[in-house]
Order: sequence, then C-alpha cells, then structure tokens
Amino acid sequence: MTTASICTIGDEILIGQIVDTNSSYISRELNAIGIRISGMVSIGDNHDRIINTLRNELKNNDIVITTGGLGPTKDDITKAALAELSGSSRYVVHEGQKEVVYRILHSRGLEVLDINEQQALVPEKCEVIVNKLGTAPVMVFRFEDEEFGHPATLYSLPGVPFEALGAVPDVLADIKSHYKLSSITHRNIMVYGMAESALSKLIEPWEDALPSDMHLAYLPNQLTGIRLRLSVYGGEEKDNISRIEDRFAELKSILGDMVYSDADDTLQGTIGRLLKGSGKTLSAAESCTGGEIAHLITTVPGASEYFLGSVTSYAPSVKNRVLGVSMETIETCGIVSSEVAAAMAEGVRKLTGSTYAVATTGWADAYGDEHEPAGTVWVGIAGPGGTKTSKFNYRNDRNRNIERFSASALNELRKMIVSDLKA
Amino acid sequence: MTTASICTIGDEILIGQIVDTNSSYISRELNAIGIRISGMVSIGDNHDRIINTLRNELKNNDIVITTGGLGPTKDDITKAALAELSGSSRYVVHEGQKEVVYRILHSRGLEVLDINEQQALVPEKCEVIVNKLGTAPVMVFRFEDEEFGHPATLYSLPGVPFEALGAVPDVLADIKSHYKLSSITHRNIMVYGMAESALSKLIEPWEDALPSDMHLAYLPNQLTGIRLRLSVYGGEEKDNISRIEDRFAELKSILGDMVYSDADDTLQGTIGRLLKGSGKTLSAAESCTGGEIAHLITTVPGASEYFLGSVTSYAPSVKNRVLGVSMETIETCGIVSSEVAAAMAEGVRKLTGSTYAVATTGWADAYGDEHEPAGTVWVGIAGPGGTKTSKFNYRNDRNRNIERFSASALNELRKMIVSDLKA
Repeated sequence: MTTASICTIGDEILIGQIVDTNSSYISRELNAIGIRISGMVSIGDNHDRIINTLRNELKNNDIVITTGGLGPTKDDITKAALAELSGSSRYVVHEGQKEVVYRILHSRGLEVLDINEQQALVPEKCEVIVNKLGTAPVMVFRFEDEEFGHPATLYSLPGVPFEALGAVPDVLADIKSHYKLSSITHRNIMVYGMAESALSKLIEPWEDALPSDMHLAYLPNQLTGIRLRLSVYGGEEKDNISRIEDRFAELKSILGDMVYSDADDTLQGTIGRLLKGSGKTLSAAESCTGGEIAHLITTVPGASEYFLGSVTSYAPSVKNRVLGVSMETIETCGIVSSEVAAAMAEGVRKLTGSTYAVATTGWADAYGDEHEPAGTVWVGIAGPGGTKTSKFNYRNDRNRNIERFSASALNELRKMIVSDLKA
Repeated sequence: MTTASICTIGDEILIGQIVDTNSSYISRELNAIGIRISGMVSIGDNHDRIINTLRNELKNNDIVITTGGLGPTKDDITKAALAELSGSSRYVVHEGQKEVVYRILHSRGLEVLDINEQQALVPEKCEVIVNKLGTAPVMVFRFEDEEFGHPATLYSLPGVPFEALGAVPDVLADIKSHYKLSSITHRNIMVYGMAESALSKLIEPWEDALPSDMHLAYLPNQLTGIRLRLSVYGGEEKDNISRIEDRFAELKSILGDMVYSDADDTLQGTIGRLLKGSGKTLSAAESCTGGEIAHLITTVPGASEYFLGSVTSYAPSVKNRVLGVSMETIETCGIVSSEVAAAMAEGVRKLTGSTYAVATTGWADAYGDEHEPAGTVWVGIAGPGGTKTSKFNYRNDRNRNIERFSASALNELRKMIVSDLKA
C-alpha cells in the first residue's frame, strides 16, 4: 500500500499558538484514495531540523506532504531547505504564480513589494502547481530510486488552512496520475441517539458478519452523533457501492429512526433538507442553550427559506412576556420542566407563525433545583399534530452540556418532521 | 534550555478521524514554564514504530510526553512497548489507580470487568501519577544517563482530552521538582479592532524598543481578536511583572480602547465582568448572526445575572411583529441598513426591558443587495444614552463571516458600556 507522511513546519504549532487542523484534513483525504498515513510530524522553523526530518520521512514513505513555512517573511528557511534537499543550485521565477501574486495584491489595492514577488521564486528542481488562492506556490519535488531507495515525491503546501486545503485536490490529482493506488470505497451513515459503546453492542452481530474486505469505523461527534463509515478495499467502485448499500439496508432495519442520513451530514443539515421546498417553516425558543440551536440552524446555507427566527428567553420575564409562558406554570412546575418546555415551543410557534417550533429549558451548569438535577434539559417540539416533550441528562461541563442539549433538541425536532411526513 | 517532544499514539489521529488538540494545549503549558518544544509526532498503534519513535525522541530531548494508546481495548500495544523500552519484565497492580477504576465504574452503575481492572496494571519500572478523572493511569519512566546520553523522562498520558488535560498540572509539578528550569514570565493583553498586519505596523516603534530579554507574540483568533503576549526569560518574577506592566502601560496609551482586557479574556467575558454586580442588563436581536451572539454571551458562567434574552429575527415578519421594525423602514432603507440595525436594537431593548441591547443585520453569504454588498454587517447598540450604529465588511465564507460579525458587534457593545462608565 502506498504510504505517506505529513509534516507541519512552523514555530506557531510548537508553541501551541495554533492547532494543526491541516494534517487531519489531509490525512482524511489521502485515506479516502487508498493511501496509508504512517505518521505526522511537526517541526520548527529550523534549517537542519527540516532537512533531517524530511530526509528521514522520504526514506520511510512514498509520499511526503509538508504544510507551512512559506509565508513572505519566513519564506527563506523552508525554501532554502527544499533547495538543498533537491540539489537545486538556483531559484527560478514561476511566471504563472507571479501573475497570481500580482492579481491577489492588486485586488486588495496593495502594491507588490519585492518580498511578495519573491514568493514566485522556486528552486530549479521543482514542478509548480499554481496556488490560485494565495501567493505561495505548491512545489513538487520528485526523487529517483537512488536518492532514498525508492521513488519518492515531496509536496510543499502553504500553511494557511484556506490555501493548504484549497491545494489538496490538485495534489490528489497529481498523486493519482503518478501512483497506482489500490482502490478504496467509503460510504457513511449518520446515527443519533445512542452512546458509542451501546451502539457497538447493538450492532455487534451485524458487524461480525461483515466480509473481511469491509471495514467499519465509528466517528463520534457530540453535535452530529456517530458517523458510521463502511470501507471496502480493492474491487470495482460500482460493485462496492452496491455491496455497502445492501449492508446499510440491514443496519437501518436494526437502528430505525436513529439513522438520520446516509450522506456525511449534520442534524441541522438534515432538517434543512426536510424543510426546503416544503413550504413548512421553523422557529426556536431557547433557555439553557442560549442561542446555540438558532446558530446551528443558521449555519446551513439557505436556512432563511424555512427558519423564521427564535427567542432566547434567559430571564423568566422574557419567557412570560415574549413567549406567553404563565408565571404560575413556572412557579408550580419549575423553570426546567416538561410544562415550561411545551409552553415555550407553543409560544414561539404562535409568535412567529411557524409550522414547527423547538424549545429547550435546562440546567447546563453544575447546579439544579428541587425539580430537576444539574445536567437536565427538557425539550419541547410543537407542530401541526401537537406538542411533544422529552427529557435528557448529561454530565459534562457547561459548554459541552449546551452542545449536547442542542443536538438532542434538533434530533427530537427531526423525528417529529419525519414522522409527520410518513403520516 | 530544557527541551521536550510531544508524541501522540493512535490510529484515529492518522486516519484524520480526530484533530489532535492535546498536543497544542500541552505545548502551551510547557512553554509557559520555560520548556522548549523541539517537535511533535503522531504515530499509529504499532509496537515497533512506537519503540523506535520514543527511543529517538528520548535521545534528542530531556522530556517526552505521550498521549493516547491506553484505552481498555488497545491498552496492550502502548503499555507493552513502554514495558520493553523501560526494561520491565513484569507488570504490577497499582492499588491507587485500581480504586479509581472501581469508583468510576460503580458511580456509572457498571460492573468492573477484567478488561477494566487491567488498566491499573503497569510495567514494574514506572512511577504512577494517579489519574482521578479516568481509568488509565499516568505512567512516569525515568531513564539514567547511560540509556540516552543524558537523564530523560517519559510521561505517558491517556488520550481522551478531558483526562489528558486533567493530568497536566501533576505532570508540570513533577517536571518542576526534577528539572531546574529557566524562569519565564508571561502576561497578555487583548486587543480588538485592527488586523494583525496593521497592528504590527502601528506598534512597531514600541516593539523595537523592547529590551532583548522580552519577547512579543501575536496570538490572533477571530472571535477574540489578537492576544499580545509579552514574555521575559530569566530574572525574578516580581520584577518581570512590574517591567511588563510598564511596557503594557505604554502600549495601552498607543492602542486606546482597542485594548479590552489585560487578562487572557474574551469579549463576552469582558462584557460579563463589566455588567456583573452593576444591576445593568443586556439583550440581543440577531439577523445574520442567527443566535451566535446570544450563544457567545451565554457561554460565560453566571450570564443569567445580566443577560435577559434575545430574538433571532431571521424573517422580516419577525423583525416587524416581534421587534417592531416598520416594514416601511425595511423597504426604504434595505434590510441590511443602519436604520434597521438601530430599530432592532431599540425594539429588543424595549421588549425585554434591558439596559443595553446589541443588534446585527447583514449579508453573511456570497450575495448582497442593491443597498449593501456581500459580507456587510450593520451593528446597532442601544443604551441609556441613545443608539449607535456601525458598519463592517468581511470577505470570508458564511460561517467565518457569522463569527466575525458577532465579535465586531460584541466589541461595539463593550465600547458603549465602557464609555458610559467613564461618563
């Protein structure tokens, strides 16, 4: 199997100033085309360390991808190391990248300084993939057998995530045209409403019956639930997809409405797909989740077609005056109660005139009251068929509880919309 | 200077399933006590690769910190590698950790299985720092000079971020008691309202005048602005703090009200400090930011003391019916306009009865209208002294624009509160 190593260059990672998200993205993309990542390394802006590390990684891998170390001010360190490594004795101007440098700076109303123009200078023994999104080019160095005992390729990408990730498709195309990769087919389904350990127990017989060329991965996330990824190594893609779909059909009959999508989706994205073009609309009333549900709904492009708005009713007076929750209900049942969640959902549905409404009231912090303990949320969903409430309890810190409350509420909303569609 | 390497063990990082946030946190903490991070490495669950990598890192560093590879199911790989590396010929039960395993599982109502109890088994040649937050212990291996040419210490931490980060204070205490570290003093100030490049130009004369033992770092974040960190190497902490404070006083006179905190703070945290105990209250009306401002405000513990609530008025009808923005204003001035932002802020202030209100209306997506282009946000702030509006334009994607719009709005709100306090 073709192997790769990912190297991040730059002091900013080593001092903990930024988290390296490039490597994770790149490794996912390489995995998806059938390349195994043998390791990831982060090193500082240091000439010898860069050369030694890259030599070592090239010795042990078919492909090495570096990100970072190419900004206008520290350009020289990485580029000089790459020049030495490749045995380049001079730099040449790459006209295509130079044009991009001029275009980008002019579009920002800036003059092109020497320091900018130098970004289009590359060691002579490299091929350039023009970086259309930034001033630093992608440099490709190809090494013959004698150098590291096998043919090896080094791709040098910029460090800015926007630019690095933008260059990945071109890098993947270059890899595919130079390496014979074993094929790999992936498909995902999204599951919400069960912990990973319980899910794994429930689907154990199904998983044990998978043929040996199929591999299942659990990819959990507290906002989106668990992504189950089924991969097939080798074979024809068309056959693989049909084999995966057969297995997923079995899985869906085991998991029922816990499966919310068979794409790589989110709960709010799924809700968007269900509502778009249906003429149905949505609103929200939030207490403990403080705006997070509305925020998640509005991260979906085009949400304005179905999302009318929301009320964050943090103070009881806002629950009462804006949403019409009676003070008596709040006092008798408790501010965190099924009755208040239902009244909030019905109140915001009436206020905005929406088809559906989702509401939350809970204790996100480490305290509760005489009605409900810390970590409890009551979710209310109101729709044309009536109002439904449900209770959840999580034991995380404030901000993780807010996320889990929000995801559970979106999932309850999704279930009501789906059940109405079936009715 | 004492050096360290951070190694992450586990296939889940290499396949891009999770982003490694532990290493970034640990490197920041080590830097803060005067340790230089020479590199970071991620490797898979592979015996030989673990041993070779750790040997190499121990040869080149005083300290190696590993995270991961210690879960109940894959326990054996990392622990067996550490046993071999340390020359341990057998495993012993650590009674303190065993108690924790029982306590944690019982508190969750679970039985203790063999697989759980084995987590308290450690190679004989290690010291244990009991992990109170999880079942896998922190293992400390101390190597004499002859092993790697210098004394070296390896700390093995669990991979779950909550547990790994929880163990860091104990690890730092152990390092401090075994290594003579050169002292280092850090202080931060938080700046909002200027791009990094412009800020760097503005404070260049001040920065150039810093003595050679002081080092300035820019730590930008789009939700909190730029954290400027001033570090002094060596010397007495008390003197260092007073010298930093003198320099920060100069900086504040240059930057004025762009400086919002001299702690490691956020805009919403600063607003919380300004409002708590003042009897003053806050509300929000959001259009394009869709709930993100309310969400940020309510991430601050105790926000319920001053935050009454908010309205996300995504649909014009909600702006009109709930917030009282006239349809005529919307049609004449445009939905993204100074007039609508002002009316939204005044509307939600009246609706909730709050002292202050913040409002946003803008185009987060790639389109605008005949009044304003894509990426524009109008912010309205209403308070006892009247209403103020401001306009910002950013050119990011939808979700980054939402974040930048929200941060700019919080900053405008902060400026009004501060200016009222001065009046």
